Amino acid sequence: MTRLKLGMVGGGQGAFIGAVHRMAARLDDQWELVAGALSSDPERALTSSRQLGISDDRSYSNFAAMAKAEAERADGIDAVAIVTPNHVHAGPAISFLNHGIHVICDKPLSATLDQARDIAHAVKESGKCFVLTHNYTGYPLVRQARHMIAAGELGDIRVVQVEYAQDWLAVELSNKQADWRTDPAKSGAGGCIGDIGTHAINLATFVTGLEVKEVAADLDAFVPGRGLDDNAQVFLRFGGGAKGMLWSSQVAVGNENNLTLRIYGSKAGIEWSQENPNVLLFTRFGEPKQVLTRGGPRTSPADTRIPSGHPEGYLEAFGTIYADAAKLIRAHEMKSDAPQSGPLPDINDGVFGMAFVSACVKSSENNSAWVKVDS
Amino acid sequence: MTRLKLGMVGGGQGAFIGAVHRMAARLDDQWELVAGALSSDPERALTSSRQLGISDDRSYSNFAAMAKAEAERADGIDAVAIVTPNHVHAGPAISFLNHGIHVICDKPLSATLDQARDIAHAVKESGKCFVLTHNYTGYPLVRQARHMIAAGELGDIRVVQVEYAQDWLAVELSNKQADWRTDPAKSGAGGCIGDIGTHAINLATFVTGLEVKEVAADLDAFVPGRGLDDNAQVFLRFGGGAKGMLWSSQVAVGNENNLTLRIYGSKAGIEWSQENPNVLLFTRFGEPKQVLTRGGPRTSPADTRIPSGHPEGYLEAFGTIYADAAKLIRAHEMKSDAPQSGPLPDINDGVFGMAFVSACVKSSENNSAWVKVDS
Amino acid sequence: MTRLKLGMVGGGQGAFIGAVHRMAARLDDQWELVAGALSSDPERALTSSRQLGISDDRSYSNFAAMAKAEAERADGIDAVAIVTPNHVHAGPAISFLNHGIHVICDKPLSATLDQARDIAHAVKESGKCFVLTHNYTGYPLVRQARHMIAAGELGDIRVVQVEYAQDWLAVELSNKQADWRTDPAKSGAGGCIGDIGTHAINLATFVTGLEVKEVAADLDAFVPGRGLDDNAQVFLRFGGGAKGMLWSSQVAVGNENNLTLRIYGSKAGIEWSQENPNVLLFTRFGEPKQVLTRGGPRTSPADTRIPSGHPEGYLEAFGTIYADAAKLIRAHEMKSDAPQSGPLPDINDGVFGMAFVSACVKSSENNSAWVKVDS
Amino acid sequence: MTRLKLGMVGGGQGAFIGAVHRMAARLDDQWELVAGALSSDPERALTSSRQLGISDDRSYSNFAAMAKAEAERADGIDAVAIVTPNHVHAGPAISFLNHGIHVICDKPLSATLDQARDIAHAVKESGKCFVLTHNYTGYPLVRQARHMIAAGELGDIRVVQVEYAQDWLAVELSNKQADWRTDPAKSGAGGCIGDIGTHAINLATFVTGLEVKEVAADLDAFVPGRGLDDNAQVFLRFGGGAKGMLWSSQVAVGNENNLTLRIYGSKAGIEWSQENPNVLLFTRFGEPKQVLTRGGPRTSPADTRIPSGHPEGYLEAFGTIYADAAKLIRAHEMKSDAPQSGPLPDINDGVFGMAFVSACVKSSENNSAWVKVDS
Repeated sequence: MTRLKLGMVGGGQGAFIGAVHRMAARLDDQWELVAGALSSDPERALTSSRQLGISDDRSYSNFAAMAKAEAERADGIDAVAIVTPNHVHAGPAISFLNHGIHVICDKPLSATLDQARDIAHAVKESGKCFVLTHNYTGYPLVRQARHMIAAGELGDIRVVQVEYAQDWLAVELSNKQADWRTDPAKSGAGGCIGDIGTHAINLATFVTGLEVKEVAADLDAFVPGRGLDDNAQVFLRFGGGAKGMLWSSQVAVGNENNLTLRIYGSKAGIEWSQENPNVLLFTRFGEPKQVLTRGGPRTSPADTRIPSGHPEGYLEAFGTIYADAAKLIRAHEMKSDAPQSGPLPDINDGVFGMAFVSACVKSSENNSAWVKVDS
Repeated sequence: MTRLKLGMVGGGQGAFIGAVHRMAARLDDQWELVAGALSSDPERALTSSRQLGISDDRSYSNFAAMAKAEAERADGIDAVAIVTPNHVHAGPAISFLNHGIHVICDKPLSATLDQARDIAHAVKESGKCFVLTHNYTGYPLVRQARHMIAAGELGDIRVVQVEYAQDWLAVELSNKQADWRTDPAKSGAGGCIGDIGTHAINLATFVTGLEVKEVAADLDAFVPGRGLDDNAQVFLRFGGGAKGMLWSSQVAVGNENNLTLRIYGSKAGIEWSQENPNVLLFTRFGEPKQVLTRGGPRTSPADTRIPSGHPEGYLEAFGTIYADAAKLIRAHEMKSDAPQSGPLPDINDGVFGMAFVSACVKSSENNSAWVKVDS
Repeated sequence: MTRLKLGMVGGGQGAFIGAVHRMAARLDDQWELVAGALSSDPERALTSSRQLGISDDRSYSNFAAMAKAEAERADGIDAVAIVTPNHVHAGPAISFLNHGIHVICDKPLSATLDQARDIAHAVKESGKCFVLTHNYTGYPLVRQARHMIAAGELGDIRVVQVEYAQDWLAVELSNKQADWRTDPAKSGAGGCIGDIGTHAINLATFVTGLEVKEVAADLDAFVPGRGLDDNAQVFLRFGGGAKGMLWSSQVAVGNENNLTLRIYGSKAGIEWSQENPNVLLFTRFGEPKQVLTRGGPRTSPADTRIPSGHPEGYLEAFGTIYADAAKLIRAHEMKSDAPQSGPLPDINDGVFGMAFVSACVKSSENNSAWVKVDS
Repeated sequence: MTRLKLGMVGGGQGAFIGAVHRMAARLDDQWELVAGALSSDPERALTSSRQLGISDDRSYSNFAAMAKAEAERADGIDAVAIVTPNHVHAGPAISFLNHGIHVICDKPLSATLDQARDIAHAVKESGKCFVLTHNYTGYPLVRQARHMIAAGELGDIRVVQVEYAQDWLAVELSNKQADWRTDPAKSGAGGCIGDIGTHAINLATFVTGLEVKEVAADLDAFVPGRGLDDNAQVFLRFGGGAKGMLWSSQVAVGNENNLTLRIYGSKAGIEWSQENPNVLLFTRFGEPKQVLTRGGPRTSPADTRIPSGHPEGYLEAFGTIYADAAKLIRAHEMKSDAPQSGPLPDINDGVFGMAFVSACVKSSENNSAWVKVDS
């Protein structure tokens, strides 16, 4: 099977998430990186692309030029990965979609809800695939949890507790990663609620299959002078009557990437944590807690590469998103529904994420009043 | 040193918490149980007191009679432990205080805020000691955490996450323990927010030393037909600007007595969980997490009976409350400030707890609007 | 029910384990401490007994005098607790047994195998009860594990891994606790193999029900100048073909009281650790691991005082030994088999422990040759 | 930087570890798979190589033919990965080395010690690079531990506890993976001691830097009819006086890939476990335990791809072996010592591993007598 051809926008020298996308794309050998607008600075773009083995004629410093040129090539890219800061998602996404190129886009979808809706419009008009890299959904036991809930093993969902806590912004910090994340012009109205809160709410909805109807939020910027929230606490009301709490923080000293999801239903409860992702705790009411392991007894063998007890991690979960994106695009190209990919976050998840951030910000500005999430 | 003489109201056959109080009182050999109104049913009262080695002439079935009789005896009790359901706290507490007898009272303080204030009035008028058995404050590492925060090791407190999750009421249940806890006439307006949420908020304020100014709450009764909340989610605003979230639930399947406290300051963070209480996680920003153990390096040797690595548990923590109550009462009797007891929850904590429950219920009835906690 | 009357030999000021025995004895209200030879120094003995509320006429400084006097009193003690260093077990044990008084004795049984056999002889001749405080057998989940294995839930036992690791002797240390433990004249031929290795092997045989047939050992004293082993590694061959490894160490930096037992059979495996004793991990082959909790689903309700999720610890386990000793003695006095106590370590376990230590020392002296355990 | 060209022997359809090697080789983009003798069955070899995008003219079914042909090509492979069962390591390894091609070989080195020495001879004669994929050495915190010990942070090493426990062979099992591992003709004289015990001992020596001088072993085959050990317990005596215990088992029900290493020195102790590899516990005597995390405070930033708190796993560790092998080979080709690779297991580790297995088997056959390890 030949590899799909991948282009990339962003991800040049000094960037972080671009390298992650590239490792994820390589892992299962479904993708080949052949083109890139890795930086808007021409020199940095060229240096970066050479380091990655991209030929000079497919190294661009302008995403619009890249979209046009690649669309015209017989051997043009199948898909583009957009790994720029939030405010530079909408431009390239729409441009590539309009040129008929599938898009794999980092999260959150955009800096504003309006941009999100513009992208959604372009997706619909183009008919192309759009994959949002809410990469935590690629963890096998996250998908296992989703499957178990869909199969009714938890009964009616009552309570959802989700949190994503970090501490790297507990003090004033200025570097490439911190700067745009704390700049409203680049991140949008949400700080940590946008950067990691969207991961948390995506995980909760992905696993439960429930819609978030309303939120009430209290956002804070604890570090003096910070322009965006670095701590967000949110109440959730789901369709069907479930309630929930979401906490995202970048000032919780002692937390690295503590993304934890706990779901309680009328029949059973589950707990999963990203820092030890090969374990899913499952308790039926009145029975002992069970420790489900990735690839172990009573779990689905899908989406896993190595035997249980040998840990898979973040890159493997991210790799699964890319592997499934390849399946999705191949099926789309063959106008086939098969072979089906796993469940991938898409444009709707992206628009919802932005609507969620908007609603949280609005609620917090209104002294935590309940606000409907309108995506 | 002679033992103090203890009486008990409630705690007869079939009760739960009375036996816990008695084990706690025995552990450090500071108390001797000599009198009781263990039940309002005379026969059960007598049978129960005989089983406990109480002489028949000090077995009562009426707390008012007991208070009067014991106050008149030369060898009357030094203190009474009140271990009845919430709505039967105020009556005996006020009665014994008015007869000049110190009171050790189970939590929450009462069924209503008015009752709480009545007890507070009696405490003030009588000048007697009043200890509320928020027993989790007796865990050595809880006191260690309080000490570290008071000493400034966490810097300014920013975020407090506290939760108390159980699952025993995840289904309809009828027994002695469940019935009064789900009956508004006996428990008061709060269900799980009163029964275990008060423990959680007490723990948070005890350790941080902060006051709760406002709450916003969303309470639910998930089990059909239940008259009181079995799941409570609360936002907290503390004096000084810290924010917090409290979750208490009795329907979180897979949780037994998961009382967990996490506190994040500008300099460091701590985490403690009741189910593994001999460990306190402490992280200074930019340094590796430290695992502090009860009695181990960098912890205070106080309030601990056996070497580190040998677990102490719930009864030992409860025993520390009783041992400190004895110290407090001995010092009071000698009109001395020394020997000082450890920090004990008192009448103010009790009134605050009831004000907290009232505010949560009011907020929830007002669609989670912020409500001031007025204790 | 009246309390049994307890005497104590050893346990005066400055001692450690005596206070543990007293707390354990008090916990379930079955015992009353009324007499003691708490020290061989008359002044210390008197001061210590007064602190404990023992009347002066029952305070002794000579165990033989105490045995004689208590045996002659109408209200003499029912049992004596011997809490002296190892080399002062045989003398008092034999003396009290010969005076018809039941004995509760700290472990290991003695300093030498000959002393152990002498005590065994006295037990047999006197017909009195003898309880050895291998207190870890009092943990409810240890008894649960024993019950599960006896019921065949693990199938044929194949592999036993047991360890007891501490670090307090990792450096040269001189204090009351360290001195006698590292002195062959007081401890006997075994250092850490006697002090804590005997706990480990007792736990393994208690839970599996298997006999240890042979051992091969390699003992070391890592701290310069130390006269007894501070690290012991042992191979075990059990009756029935199971194999095992035992490691005990007092120089394993980072371990406090890490007593861990893992047992693997043809059908299932279990794991238990003293530092988190309220959890027992149980895995049937091909099924997810189960987390059994003290008092939780699928465990026996026996030997537990408070609900699951509220931790019981070391003192509670020790208390269960005392509560069961009371049951045993009451039944013995009534010449009844009922009410039965839980399974208590007895004189045979004590003699076996000493034979085990002797065999380990002999093996180590013979370059780890296999040595039969002859108890 | 152009990729190095990789060939593979073994790893066709139905194989396990070949796919792992390929993912590991892809992860950091240093290798391109261009040739293979993926199976000795010509049809399976061709089908397999086509699936992997290898051109037909570089698909072989005979490793000798492959070595010759690739050596003669101008664009021949830089290195070959040997991923066959143990008894088919020596043949291809020697063949490729003799043709001047670097070798990356799966472990254990061979089926017999004689084969191991033959390979060692070929490595020496050829002067080519030889990397043994003891992949656990690629975990960043394993290297961190090695670095800390080399820097003296643990003081003198006293005690080493290492174990590798699995349970997949707890019952009779017949499949491609199980069959050759339990067949002496294919695995050699060691069963689980060879398959996973060699990983354990490699890890212990890699981290401590100590030599194993002598072993005493007790090997068992618990499953009826099994021809090789499925449980091995070993005493270790290291150069410098340290002692150790090694346990490897494939019948320990409830263990998946529990490779755990604990090392105790005169100043500090460390603990690491493969199933949660992003954590290293470190305790200085008299101080609280520290939780070091991959990429977190007080750890080296090397060998890690993503931020702390985002778990890396087995494939990343394996990938590091491949990335470092690329560095090693590039430096070798440039006759340069720089850029240096990380510390890679080599031919000496491989010969030692076989000598270790031989010594364990000999000891076990001699009733656990001490046997010198002669590599």
